[in-house]
Amino acid sequence: MADSLNSPNISDLSEEQIIALFADSLSSADGIGIGDDSSVTEGPSGLKQFLSTDLIVEHVHFRRQDISAHFLGHKALAVNLSDIAAMGGRPNGFYLSLALPKELSVSWLRQFRDGLLALAKKHNILLLGGDTTRSQNDIIVNITITGVGKPRQVKLRSEAKVGDVLCVTGTLGDSAAGLKILSNPDQYAHLTKSERQQLLESHQQPKPEVEKGQWLSQEKAVHAMIDVSDGLLRDAHHIAQQSQCRLNIELEQLPLSQAFKSFYEKNGINKQAQEFAVAGGEDYRLLLAVAEDAVKDLQKRYKQKFSTILHQIGSVSKGDSEVEILRDGSPVEVKEQEFKHFKES
Amino acid sequence: MADSLNSPNISDLSEEQIIALFADSLSSADGIGIGDDSSVTEGPSGLKQFLSTDLIVEHVHFRRQDISAHFLGHKALAVNLSDIAAMGGRPNGFYLSLALPKELSVSWLRQFRDGLLALAKKHNILLLGGDTTRSQNDIIVNITITGVGKPRQVKLRSEAKVGDVLCVTGTLGDSAAGLKILSNPDQYAHLTKSERQQLLESHQQPKPEVEKGQWLSQEKAVHAMIDVSDGLLRDAHHIAQQSQCRLNIELEQLPLSQAFKSFYEKNGINKQAQEFAVAGGEDYRLLLAVAEDAVKDLQKRYKQKFSTILHQIGSVSKGDSEVEILRDGSPVEVKEQEFKHFKES
Repeated sequence: MADSLNSPNISDLSEEQIIALFADSLSSADGIGIGDDSSVTEGPSGLKQFLSTDLIVEHVHFRRQDISAHFLGHKALAVNLSDIAAMGGRPNGFYLSLALPKELSVSWLRQFRDGLLALAKKHNILLLGGDTTRSQNDIIVNITITGVGKPRQVKLRSEAKVGDVLCVTGTLGDSAAGLKILSNPDQYAHLTKSERQQLLESHQQPKPEVEKGQWLSQEKAVHAMIDVSDGLLRDAHHIAQQSQCRLNIELEQLPLSQAFKSFYEKNGINKQAQEFAVAGGEDYRLLLAVAEDAVKDLQKRYKQKFSTILHQIGSVSKGDSEVEILRDGSPVEVKEQEFKHFKES
Repeated sequence: MADSLNSPNISDLSEEQIIALFADSLSSADGIGIGDDSSVTEGPSGLKQFLSTDLIVEHVHFRRQDISAHFLGHKALAVNLSDIAAMGGRPNGFYLSLALPKELSVSWLRQFRDGLLALAKKHNILLLGGDTTRSQNDIIVNITITGVGKPRQVKLRSEAKVGDVLCVTGTLGDSAAGLKILSNPDQYAHLTKSERQQLLESHQQPKPEVEKGQWLSQEKAVHAMIDVSDGLLRDAHHIAQQSQCRLNIELEQLPLSQAFKSFYEKNGINKQAQEFAVAGGEDYRLLLAVAEDAVKDLQKRYKQKFSTILHQIGSVSKGDSEVEILRDGSPVEVKEQEFKHFKES
């Protein structure tokens, strides 16, 4: 089965190209293709069903020494809950496929279970099935999650309109900063204990915005929605591509937490902080495109409901399916940094 | 994170014990737990939804040198289709999570896709989503499949009744024989080309009995159903445990193909052939418990419909949730042989 030396291998393909290989057969009964946070099919009682599946592989998405079993269990489910949140859905069950190396301790598995089930309980969803098997070396976790929503309230990536305002449900960059602290714990001694804790928690125990997603899904003025899992830049790009318009993000408008700002204070370079927040992943906030004339009222009611701000960070304009990052109104180039995302392929 | 030398590790647990760790939270909205071929929840238009998920890991379930990419693609989906068949369901979509090592050739992936999508097309189901990622070493495939069925036609493992007759939808052992041929190709030179081909095909390109499962699901007399994936002995055990009765299997009644008999003719020991057929896995036939007074009529109509025999192989009696294997009416002990099943954990 030796391949010719000239034949391409998987490392020559992007994730998009791999998906494209399967593209002919990729479509749903509703004509909603693979490009969204979940599939959309017919569900019970006239509702739509959302289904999403995520594969997490040791040494690719995490290292055992960097994340406790409890946090891994939490995070594996959080990633999936966030996909349902981004569709505006209510999660209603999940399935766990687990491959475990022989030498792994039972105590590790118990902690993984505890982290997983604590989050499941919080969101009132049941483990409905799964598969367990051995693995030779690596821990492998695949979670499939299902959710439901009213047909008119399904929020896609493809419905952003020219003139819309871009909003985000919370601060960005905290998780990426947390990862940096984990990787180089000694470099960030200037942070207070509580700042450090907050950034680590954002990375290790992200809170999927399921309740906010459902609330926002009821708003007609919310045209498009996605969760910020790969980083704002990449996820905004998904909306731009699928809505065929240009997304403009203003760096000055990005909501940054005090802890995140402190993280950068050592060098005092605010510019770097903003770019880091644009590129960093795993925030699991929701990014939405909202009708311009409705945004003020929406922000007001959102604040009443959640006691927090729905941050306006940019706009949607006619254009080339690209994302433009602006500082003081002028385009700047932000390079994607070398994050090793939990869910990056 | 070092564990005490005394603490147990994963190799000390059976799959059942691992599942038991999660057991508290394992249940479905219908009260149908994890122990069946799929979960059962509310589906569209008053139907039930079936969902099953299977994780296949290189070096555990297959070796790259033993199975072509095309066959692996076929088989990964076949295993899942068989789970839906065993519930009496109609499959309606699937999701593919794929982790691939960098050095894998794109040509391998194309062949995998072709094998997978050819079977999907045959069963008229669409790929609705998934996840792709890198892996460090191993090919990892997780397929989640969904199906639907009428509420009254759902067939569980737990509904076998004392007095029922056990039936199986086709010959047993062919797949396990095919695996033996693959492992020791030179040992079976006495087989004709077509016998060899037939056994290899049973192993490499199993045909999930989706149509038969749906037809049988309409029969009230069919009380319980399961697919024979782990081997007749093990899968019968699942019915015995969940229906809380004893299953009696008569070795003389087992349907064996001519190719399978030839496989054993070298030594001429028929007894070994029957035991091999009981223990060997991956046949993907359906095993069912049928009301005794209805079985003759069912067999007749089954033969008219499928031009093949619904084989009667044993009975259900009051007892201890165990499986008894009988030769000439007397119990014999059959040891589970050392097969490396595709889906064995």
